[in-house]
Amino acid sequence: MIESSTAQAAAIDTTWYEPLTASAENGAMSMSDFHSWFNARTRANSFQVEQIPFAELRGWDFDPETGNLVHETGRFFSIEGLRVRTNRPWMSEWGQPIIVQPEIGVLGILVKRFDGVPHCLMQAKMEPGNINGLQISPTVQATRSNYMRVHGGADTKYLDYFRPGSRGRVLFDGLQSEQGSWFLHKRNRNLVVETDDDVPLDEDFCWLTLDQIRRLLLLDHMMNMDSRTVLSCIPPSLSEPSKQDAGDDSFTHAVLRSSAGRSRAVHDTGEILSWLTEVRAQQELVQRRVSLKHLTEDGWRVGPDSINHRDGKYFDIIAVAVQASNREVTAWTQPLLAPRQPGLLALLVKRIGGTLHALVQARSDAGMLNIAELTATVHCQPGNYADVPMEHRPTYLDHALAAPAHRVRLDVLHSEEGGRFHHAQNRYLVIEVEDDFTESDDDRYRWATLHQLTSLLPHSNYLTVELRSLMASMRSLTQRL
Amino acid sequence: MIESSTAQAAAIDTTWYEPLTASAENGAMSMSDFHSWFNARTRANSFQVEQIPFAELRGWDFDPETGNLVHETGRFFSIEGLRVRTNRPWMSEWGQPIIVQPEIGVLGILVKRFDGVPHCLMQAKMEPGNINGLQISPTVQATRSNYMRVHGGADTKYLDYFRPGSRGRVLFDGLQSEQGSWFLHKRNRNLVVETDDDVPLDEDFCWLTLDQIRRLLLLDHMMNMDSRTVLSCIPPSLSEPSKQDAGDDSFTHAVLRSSAGRSRAVHDTGEILSWLTEVRAQQELVQRRVSLKHLTEDGWRVGPDSINHRDGKYFDIIAVAVQASNREVTAWTQPLLAPRQPGLLALLVKRIGGTLHALVQARSDAGMLNIAELTATVHCQPGNYADVPMEHRPTYLDHALAAPAHRVRLDVLHSEEGGRFHHAQNRYLVIEVEDDFTESDDDRYRWATLHQLTSLLPHSNYLTVELRSLMASMRSLTQRL
Repeated sequence: MIESSTAQAAAIDTTWYEPLTASAENGAMSMSDFHSWFNARTRANSFQVEQIPFAELRGWDFDPETGNLVHETGRFFSIEGLRVRTNRPWMSEWGQPIIVQPEIGVLGILVKRFDGVPHCLMQAKMEPGNINGLQISPTVQATRSNYMRVHGGADTKYLDYFRPGSRGRVLFDGLQSEQGSWFLHKRNRNLVVETDDDVPLDEDFCWLTLDQIRRLLLLDHMMNMDSRTVLSCIPPSLSEPSKQDAGDDSFTHAVLRSSAGRSRAVHDTGEILSWLTEVRAQQELVQRRVSLKHLTEDGWRVGPDSINHRDGKYFDIIAVAVQASNREVTAWTQPLLAPRQPGLLALLVKRIGGTLHALVQARSDAGMLNIAELTATVHCQPGNYADVPMEHRPTYLDHALAAPAHRVRLDVLHSEEGGRFHHAQNRYLVIEVEDDFTESDDDRYRWATLHQLTSLLPHSNYLTVELRSLMASMRSLTQRL
Repeated sequence: MIESSTAQAAAIDTTWYEPLTASAENGAMSMSDFHSWFNARTRANSFQVEQIPFAELRGWDFDPETGNLVHETGRFFSIEGLRVRTNRPWMSEWGQPIIVQPEIGVLGILVKRFDGVPHCLMQAKMEPGNINGLQISPTVQATRSNYMRVHGGADTKYLDYFRPGSRGRVLFDGLQSEQGSWFLHKRNRNLVVETDDDVPLDEDFCWLTLDQIRRLLLLDHMMNMDSRTVLSCIPPSLSEPSKQDAGDDSFTHAVLRSSAGRSRAVHDTGEILSWLTEVRAQQELVQRRVSLKHLTEDGWRVGPDSINHRDGKYFDIIAVAVQASNREVTAWTQPLLAPRQPGLLALLVKRIGGTLHALVQARSDAGMLNIAELTATVHCQPGNYADVPMEHRPTYLDHALAAPAHRVRLDVLHSEEGGRFHHAQNRYLVIEVEDDFTESDDDRYRWATLHQLTSLLPHSNYLTVELRSLMASMRSLTQRL
């Protein structure tokens, strides 16, 4: 048994949030109301997640021919093998299990103004892999199977607002990538729609201002990954905090200025794109889907209870049985990917010429669609490198781990997608480096302003979901606490 | 024997170009000088292309296990099988041979100003599949194998200008897709670099002004595909013809205004992106690489001389032996994809609210990386539809075929990539429709200005190579003839 809970909400100190800012006071509920509501949802919705042997999966089975773990409908997702060939000097070829989910789902946030203040309709939603069970998700979080109702469940609430010809104004609509180490070519459609309609409020939903959301982004395991990616796509014009909220904290101002179109960048955006093109053109990434059976030479073993690596690294594939009261389907079984260690996502930032810049990395992961994407300066599971020679440790990892507390601007634990990953958690760090910080000569890193990064969001496969999470969380820093 | 030529340049009437415009007079050579030079290059460079049985290929063979046609080094490209599953109502699943070439090559044009007028360094280059043998190619046209010198040939000339830290200014640098029906996920890096250096001029190269290039784009089979794609990426600020060249022809003015940032569009660019996102999210495109052996159920036969379809449609895969005097390697054998019919690329355009709009199609092809891209209104090989029920004929195909001559603004035959395709030719048409033209209710079409399309070029996989060819050619229309 992994987890069983009816009322185990983390004990959250809500007093920390008071007094409310002017903006939050206009919200549909105060922060303490939010926490009361969230705790009530936790109590009202029972869920139970239990690890089971693969043989007890219902509707899922290992395909006799390929050995891949697939659903009998051929839908949802599958666990397959992937062989990767690169031209890296080290770890240039490998095989690994990977989640294959060619369908594109919808992650949508509905926005409505109350007294002129934009509010987002957010949901308290259980996912089987979530830490704490319940987390805050977007208004709509639906696979194509969900909204085509392949599984015969209830309607997805509020989905009509996100259909073509919906009653709202589309503020953002684009495909965004998800974890390249664990998914093959996975993207979801991120949508932000504003409505003037009277929207009936379901009991599992609440309206939150962007300021309130910023506060919640500072809490561990509160805002789920799907929330974070859609929030990162909200146009700055909607989400920029009012001037009085920006306060006089100089780092806050630096984040705001770096996010603005007028910020002065070390490299113009054409140079950033040319550098990324160079990385993509030089980086070999040949992906070939293979049978799960063909990964034994790579150290992967398919056991009755899990698929795991002989070194005890990376991740396991497990199976769970789920019972939940507030989902479209109330009981089901499914595979999950369970990372062996937490990850570290550290973004080094520095004021250059008065403008805050982030040191982004062009990173190529096994399952990426477009060879390489921009991500955090440090992006790894440090545990995988415990026994690795110094020269092969990720650049800047040790710098991030040794950062003194007074340089740390953000430090929060977030969960990754609980519908596919079991207790996948990453530590998200923003570290403002010293003035005399010297870059490595590794050409996979570049300084970029926050505005430059945001300007790439309308186009797919530029920023990893991890970097988008960091960017959504950095907006929290523009909130005076 | 397919082709053998030492001096078979098409008889081109050069008088048609005279008198030269002011801009062309500043060029390094006049148009008649160009044609004399081009004819001389044709005479100087002998080449011979002969179809051979697969058994006579050197270095290429069918892999005994997969049946795929591969090179012994594992490099260059391979001919494999692809199974495609879509959610289309018709022809929803099929298998086909496809060219797999994961390496990203460089297509680069070097620009230099003479007397302030930008000139492009272009090359007279033979490719085995070219119609007429010699065509005009970019300064550099190199696969990664080429410039890593896998095949042991001579250096690629001028390549150093396109390396990181080169001596030039990068005007464009991005990955662009190629034929989605024939290539799996193929992209090349398109680069435009401006230099102030003294550039030694090789005998197979010449400097051409953008006006001269516009004129050559109106000639059949003169500018090769690689030239056209890079030319489409040249920033309008560099390539816009001077005001006196725009003349008073109203369609010319309409093209110029539609290409300018201030043009008023029916749909703003956010709406265009949202519509494309909707198409990409709804369109299922599941691609699975399979053995060439597994395509027999789809009607594909692997014979000693060709791989072909039992219906005589689509394309054949053939093998050729090549002898050439002006290539890095002077004799080789290779497979080529030989289309059975010419293609038709027709762009319907219309002035809406005074601004010229193009009716672009969101099209999903078997081998596309990003599910769907924008392409011409009509994009097909009409011959494939000869026996197809009316309701499955491509939308607007019959409209394009029936367009009266006075509505046709551009009509030119271009060859597609002669290094991979044998005599692949497409007819490129621009048709200005009547004021009372009514759109079909097919939601895969949208009106967009030329500026909106150009603004997407810095990002990959938005515009097909066919649409980019059309856009490069449309610039010809801004040249007073």
